[in-house]
Amino acid sequence: MKGNVSEVGANVYGPTISKLIEEFAALPGIGPKSAERLANYILSCDKNKAFALAEAIRAVKERIRPCRRCFFYSEQELCAICTDPRRNQQVLCVVEQPKDVIALEASGAYDGLYHVLHGHLSPLEGIGPNDLTIDALVERVKNENIQEVIMATNPTVEGDGTALYISNLLSEMPVKITRLARGIASGSVLEFANRDMLADALRCRQDF
Amino acid sequence: MKGNVSEVGANVYGPTISKLIEEFAALPGIGPKSAERLANYILSCDKNKAFALAEAIRAVKERIRPCRRCFFYSEQELCAICTDPRRNQQVLCVVEQPKDVIALEASGAYDGLYHVLHGHLSPLEGIGPNDLTIDALVERVKNENIQEVIMATNPTVEGDGTALYISNLLSEMPVKITRLARGIASGSVLEFANRDMLADALRCRQDF
Repeated sequence: MKGNVSEVGANVYGPTISKLIEEFAALPGIGPKSAERLANYILSCDKNKAFALAEAIRAVKERIRPCRRCFFYSEQELCAICTDPRRNQQVLCVVEQPKDVIALEASGAYDGLYHVLHGHLSPLEGIGPNDLTIDALVERVKNENIQEVIMATNPTVEGDGTALYISNLLSEMPVKITRLARGIASGSVLEFANRDMLADALRCRQDF
Repeated sequence: MKGNVSEVGANVYGPTISKLIEEFAALPGIGPKSAERLANYILSCDKNKAFALAEAIRAVKERIRPCRRCFFYSEQELCAICTDPRRNQQVLCVVEQPKDVIALEASGAYDGLYHVLHGHLSPLEGIGPNDLTIDALVERVKNENIQEVIMATNPTVEGDGTALYISNLLSEMPVKITRLARGIASGSVLEFANRDMLADALRCRQDF
């Protein structure tokens, strides 16, 4: 075989289709072969179906903004969670990314509010406190009647560092600071747990 | 865990983001999890990057039409292959789908013209000769100076049936009709070849 399909495609498909393949291939988890398959789908599908996808992409970038209070995705000034009166207004869960909110909501185990940092502190990448929504978090703890702040940053060096930095900032305020439990993952097996997981699980062992 | 992320997401994400996830999930090979990941990418990426994808989708549906002569994808009246004077104008390769043209071009082993049927005959699905570009093919063989028609439909019941139907139509005309060789696939092993492949390979065996 001489060259792969994608290389030859660029000449035979022409600029408009090649551009679409290129744009699809720029999406995460989409390789050149998948990008070509998606472009072929767009070429063969109903015109309205393709336009609906294009319009949905455009609408998201035009309508979605960060919630003014918690910085989660919102179509209004305040997001659906912040405006829900059934949520516990005294607990605040601090996460790195909007998708962490979705993951926690999916657990069905939390009914308080959130605060999305939009990243983590990372001196090596030049990301400092002012690049995150930390100031706004401190203001919220000062001005809203928050009783507990749950640190739910990722269990990584950067996530832990960010949680530590924030807990230091809040340590003078009359608010309880907690973090998500660490230990062995439900449904997993001990055999495959790594050293840190087992160390956490032993250190934080619970009464039976 | 209560429900999966995608179910909960619909409420928390709001209508605009949910719509985008839904549209991504309608693409072939994209499951609900991947659709959510793609939507999160669109949410976090540069606005111009997202608009470029939306515009590329729209452009393909607005600008691409079937080549008037061979029915491959084209931005003009005639496609890049039909207008290339270096192609052999006396050989015509009949394929089911535009993507088959790309596959054959990638082989680098063909320099003639194509004719894209846009499907195969399938009485069970109600697809008859008039749903394909068979009339146009017969006209081309009549009016262009075609010496050979290569049947390159898929090696399936429908593909073979379509090739047989077309070769009957063309049998009265002064044109040589051939089809792609069948046999064992290059790079494969005999052990895994199925009965039909081996039968084809034996029947069409070549001098060494």
